[in-house]
Amino acid sequence: MPFQVTILGSNSALPAYGRHPSSQVLQAGERLFMLDCGEGTQMRLAECHVRPGKLEAIFISHLHGDHYFGLVGLLNSFHLLGRVRPLTVYAPAELLPILELQMRYSKGALSYPLEVIPTHANGLNTLFSDHQLEALSFPLNHGPTPTTGFLVRERAGERRIQGEKARSLGIAHADMERLRLGLDVPDAAGRIVRNQDLTLAPWKPRSYAYCSDTAYLPSLREVVQGVDLLYHEATYAEADAHRAADRFHSTARQAALLAADSGVGRLLIGHFSSRYENLAPLLAEAQAVFPATELALEGQVFEVEKREGE
Amino acid sequence: MPFQVTILGSNSALPAYGRHPSSQVLQAGERLFMLDCGEGTQMRLAECHVRPGKLEAIFISHLHGDHYFGLVGLLNSFHLLGRVRPLTVYAPAELLPILELQMRYSKGALSYPLEVIPTHANGLNTLFSDHQLEALSFPLNHGPTPTTGFLVRERAGERRIQGEKARSLGIAHADMERLRLGLDVPDAAGRIVRNQDLTLAPWKPRSYAYCSDTAYLPSLREVVQGVDLLYHEATYAEADAHRAADRFHSTARQAALLAADSGVGRLLIGHFSSRYENLAPLLAEAQAVFPATELALEGQVFEVEKREGE
Repeated sequence: MPFQVTILGSNSALPAYGRHPSSQVLQAGERLFMLDCGEGTQMRLAECHVRPGKLEAIFISHLHGDHYFGLVGLLNSFHLLGRVRPLTVYAPAELLPILELQMRYSKGALSYPLEVIPTHANGLNTLFSDHQLEALSFPLNHGPTPTTGFLVRERAGERRIQGEKARSLGIAHADMERLRLGLDVPDAAGRIVRNQDLTLAPWKPRSYAYCSDTAYLPSLREVVQGVDLLYHEATYAEADAHRAADRFHSTARQAALLAADSGVGRLLIGHFSSRYENLAPLLAEAQAVFPATELALEGQVFEVEKREGE
Repeated sequence: MPFQVTILGSNSALPAYGRHPSSQVLQAGERLFMLDCGEGTQMRLAECHVRPGKLEAIFISHLHGDHYFGLVGLLNSFHLLGRVRPLTVYAPAELLPILELQMRYSKGALSYPLEVIPTHANGLNTLFSDHQLEALSFPLNHGPTPTTGFLVRERAGERRIQGEKARSLGIAHADMERLRLGLDVPDAAGRIVRNQDLTLAPWKPRSYAYCSDTAYLPSLREVVQGVDLLYHEATYAEADAHRAADRFHSTARQAALLAADSGVGRLLIGHFSSRYENLAPLLAEAQAVFPATELALEGQVFEVEKREGE
């Protein structure tokens, strides 16, 4: 059951130095989600060996081109490939007429059901929640452009049966479900066995937060508190903090401040300005504040390992 | 004064085998023109070392995504780069609302004047004509989707003065323009010298025709007759001719038939279906009909040399 993020593109608006606009794929078990979809994402999927057949939703943070200009091409290619599986796009409402207009001149009905669900930038919103995962959106501060971040986290799982032990005590098959739910059960002789002697705590739920694009927003710590992996934009170095402020972006140091303040596990920084060919200084200034920082370099995969709960 | 075509992408709708959707750049002297603009074209320009600062017009053949989904990103990046030079887009009228809608949520006024001039698929139309070049559109047959090809050709130039000879006869500077226009002029002693003794015929005007996407349309020979370089789509091999017919595309052999029938100089075939990883059979079947055929492979540059006129 992997829980991992593949970086397809991590540059800001202008592609440069072989770096592409924003897109990532989050794999949670067998389920795939995309975060933003800059131009060329469909080619980047192939180059990064990500097979999008199981993609179930695409989250679009905002309608600046470097975050969504690849969407219509991807949706179009899914149609040409004969996709059947439904797909949901969570995005600002203004995306819908854009897609409709582009597709009107392109082809008729898609080969698969496509649902576009509008996001809004008011408070924390649950986009979906099921037995495995929940996904939420939350407002960022990207100036006049409505922009949301996304938080995807695993739901608390069931207790894990120690199969060897349970079998040796002759626990009935019908009682296994009770064990998973934390109940005590009888052994073969009818003696009650304590649940904690036969099970381990559920795996700790894993979580990922995606924050791009935003000015430094300290209040985000209330949302991203304790996530295992935080992606936060770091368009500029601290030396260019005035540019960051002018354009509602963050510096690498600011991203690290948020990470430190929120007690996250690891920080990924990305959305780099085309001003910087060498990203080492951005990494260094972030690591000075929050050592567990990494560059969200394209093609890289960042996995959150399973960890014991409680 | 080069006259050459750089292939940025030559695959059909689905990117495959590292091949990208349609886009080309025609360089005529110092002037640059783009033909179609599939997704990722702005990245392809960088990869193919084409600097688009001097791009003056973009021709869009039709509104299938693999021919224009890269346009808005390119226009957007020009803005971010602070482009000042005006740009003209020739495209089906339906493109305009698409661009307007996408740009509305993206940014305010562009940094450069952008003009979108609607094409239509009725007969041969002059898009522009100046002292160096003329560009025309002409209808293709891509089924229900209005689609045009484009023809760009040099205007007839002036006669070329043989400088050494003219100087040795002491032709006045003021008479040089008369020589270029084909008139006889006096030498230093006042004797009339025949123009043809001092000048060479103008270079033969060079021409390029772009035909993508289209079913085999033999009447195109009236338009592309004698062009130096003809690009014609060859989405399918002849063995898949039924697919070509169903989808209003051509086979490699059909492209070659048109080339042979039109007496063109060279044929480039492209817009290859993702069915074919190996393109050698398509090339072979075209060359069997028209030997001067080449694959429009990405990154390649096809130049039309200057040739003596008359």
